[in-house]
Amino acid sequence: MTAILKTVAPTLQIGSARVPQSADGRLHAASALAVLGLTQAAGWARQDWESPHWAAFEHTHQLSRVLSDFGAGPEPTLSVAEFVALAARSDTTPARRIQRRMQQSYARALTGDIHLAAEIAERNAEPLSRSWLHARLESQDARRTLMSAAARHGGHGPVFGQLGSVSNRSVLGKDSATLRRERGVKHTRDGLSTDELRRLSYLDAATAAALEGGQIEGNDAILELHRKVARRERQTWAGGLERAS
Amino acid sequence: MTAILKTVAPTLQIGSARVPQSADGRLHAASALAVLGLTQAAGWARQDWESPHWAAFEHTHQLSRVLSDFGAGPEPTLSVAEFVALAARSDTTPARRIQRRMQQSYARALTGDIHLAAEIAERNAEPLSRSWLHARLESQDARRTLMSAAARHGGHGPVFGQLGSVSNRSVLGKDSATLRRERGVKHTRDGLSTDELRRLSYLDAATAAALEGGQIEGNDAILELHRKVARRERQTWAGGLERAS
Repeated sequence: MTAILKTVAPTLQIGSARVPQSADGRLHAASALAVLGLTQAAGWARQDWESPHWAAFEHTHQLSRVLSDFGAGPEPTLSVAEFVALAARSDTTPARRIQRRMQQSYARALTGDIHLAAEIAERNAEPLSRSWLHARLESQDARRTLMSAAARHGGHGPVFGQLGSVSNRSVLGKDSATLRRERGVKHTRDGLSTDELRRLSYLDAATAAALEGGQIEGNDAILELHRKVARRERQTWAGGLERAS
Repeated sequence: MTAILKTVAPTLQIGSARVPQSADGRLHAASALAVLGLTQAAGWARQDWESPHWAAFEHTHQLSRVLSDFGAGPEPTLSVAEFVALAARSDTTPARRIQRRMQQSYARALTGDIHLAAEIAERNAEPLSRSWLHARLESQDARRTLMSAAARHGGHGPVFGQLGSVSNRSVLGKDSATLRRERGVKHTRDGLSTDELRRLSYLDAATAAALEGGQIEGNDAILELHRKVARRERQTWAGGLERAS
């Protein structure tokens, strides 16, 4: 058996072009500008980035100067956000093509195009990102299952929000608002680890299953059951080390 | 047990707004234009769509007139693509906010942001879309596993393309170019059903496992093995009805 070691320089695929990326994900400015058809600026970025021309270009487009070495000494880079902003405001044929693609992509995102979701997930090279994606979608399904089970067992009004709070507080050890603040995310789910999502799915599914199998009816009884299941789940997760409270 | 029947009028979430949608997914024009801050045009769309003002607006923005009944008689609609194009070229505060969101979304899509992939998948209400997404990501993983197994067993050069062709032809009964033409898709994977993706994953994984367990070495032997596994898989799928050829 031969070990296969292939070091491929990272690139970002933009349409049919591949733009070299630095280790921290910034784009090689000269290549990125060439993709936008901004040939003069691309020339400055490649050979003349210490000139006043390039400085003026940076100033006009509010670009921060971050240099990176792609093998030929330090060269200017663009963040992906800077590249996209430039594409949006440039009036060249290739930039207009990217603008159309940007609009198509946004329309597809708005309508929940599952092919687009797949394309984006496939672009993610992080091996664990797919488990995270699966766990997140699963947790949404499990939460829905719990809510319909509760509704079928006489749950109404406040119980739906409370069930979610019990789950979150039990698994995360804090309420959602605190978690969002601590982890710096806008939506709670974006801040959860794969294991936390799995535990939430499991807990919600376990209560839903227990509801379906029993005679429980009404908000109070549903919540009591869910708190009991949550306590057990915490013990299981802790390997039996945590004492039921 | 009470059956819960809830008929919710479909809406498209755009930022914090919810725009009513027709059964075929078109947006209620008056609401959509209001979201863009185009209040005058929104007024025409709501009350005065038979006026020359609205006709001129439609003409300027190349909108096709498609009416739909949202409960108050026929009213103009916009496709999501028309809405996004209008957002991109309007110079109101809300439109500029959507332009920024569009740029952020595109930058995240380019970099394979898994949170964005999840958000898009969650917007998709079609119950089977998640199985499809899982199957598609799985099939990509299985294909990669097969390719590395082949490489570890002395596969090189043309064998990688040939392995993929054998899989596709065996499961789909035709080559990828024909499939793309017949199903009207740009990328083969977008045109495959969940079952086809599952079969491809299974077949690629089965050959990879057989390679790892055996003494097979080199392009010809690898391809012969893969063809044999493919034949068996077709028989299994056909419930044993197909005779090995």
